[in-house]
Amino acid sequence: MKRFEQQMNFILEVDKVKNIFRQTYLADGNRKENDAEHSWHLALMAFLLKEYANEEVDVAKVVLMVLIHDLVEIDAGDTYAYDKEGLQTKREREVKAAKRIFGLLPQDQGSRLYDLWEEFEAYESAEAKYAHMLDNFQPLMLNDALGGRSWREHQVKKSQVCRRNEKTHEGSEKVWKYMEGLIQKNVEKGNILDE
Amino acid sequence: MKRFEQQMNFILEVDKVKNIFRQTYLADGNRKENDAEHSWHLALMAFLLKEYANEEVDVAKVVLMVLIHDLVEIDAGDTYAYDKEGLQTKREREVKAAKRIFGLLPQDQGSRLYDLWEEFEAYESAEAKYAHMLDNFQPLMLNDALGGRSWREHQVKKSQVCRRNEKTHEGSEKVWKYMEGLIQKNVEKGNILDE
Repeated sequence: MKRFEQQMNFILEVDKVKNIFRQTYLADGNRKENDAEHSWHLALMAFLLKEYANEEVDVAKVVLMVLIHDLVEIDAGDTYAYDKEGLQTKREREVKAAKRIFGLLPQDQGSRLYDLWEEFEAYESAEAKYAHMLDNFQPLMLNDALGGRSWREHQVKKSQVCRRNEKTHEGSEKVWKYMEGLIQKNVEKGNILDE
Repeated sequence: MKRFEQQMNFILEVDKVKNIFRQTYLADGNRKENDAEHSWHLALMAFLLKEYANEEVDVAKVVLMVLIHDLVEIDAGDTYAYDKEGLQTKREREVKAAKRIFGLLPQDQGSRLYDLWEEFEAYESAEAKYAHMLDNFQPLMLNDALGGRSWREHQVKKSQVCRRNEKTHEGSEKVWKYMEGLIQKNVEKGNILDE
């Protein structure tokens, strides 16, 4: 029963990611979204936008990658994309979290998820690039749908958005082109600061 | 651009499922969970518990199935498993919803998701049986973790739980055996009524 128990413990533990809230609002603006909802959205998008990936991707792998990419935040918390100080300690905090959380699983499954998380972080494989594109696109799309509220609240600058999205085009030139249009629109509206 | 626009519209529309709340509480009891979180949890479980499926299953298919299985509730609302009246009109409400929601997508993707939703509802394929097992197991596990609060609030009877889970074993005998243990434990504690 040991193996099954380990799996049950992990499945219960990750329930906590439903309480990790992000800076992005839902499209209706009622509240911010949490990591579980965000990950669900990315997983569905991974299937639907596959045709726009620059390279051939293994969608099932991308889906598992995005389903687990934020689990480290159960321990490490959500680090806002434009939080300079938080970003400096992010890696260390997240590696420790990954070891604990994926370590709850039986060794074979734990290693597989840990490696997949590291592959996402490394941003090198076709799947990681496509997953990062989704991870950057989804909040931008929600933020645009709500008139850029999160950008305005954080007085986000165009240079910050561009830096964060430096490599987004590596996942999908097509989607990045669309994102550029959304960014430009929000700069023109003053939602993103053009300093 | 038409195809891409249809995909964007769908992706934004399904954001609404994050506001469809279920009767199940999160494991920490702070609040009830919504359909997006529930679907995320099932998708991850689909990967982790594959070895216990009675039949060989295509996990990628199961994952997509569980990611979209509750989207109809955007229009039709969540029907509680033990709501007798609601269950009578459920099918009609949900088919209408499925047509509208999946109909937002380009025809090929819309048909694929509609068919996958119908396959889930039909409860016949190996993938549908495994997905239903997950769909029944996850709330039971959360409910047990929280001392059966949702059962107590709704004064749920053992006969109701058993009827709802009549076919759960078809997805996984192993997981169903574990579930039976949880049910029995909660009957003994008086969380589930043994009339």
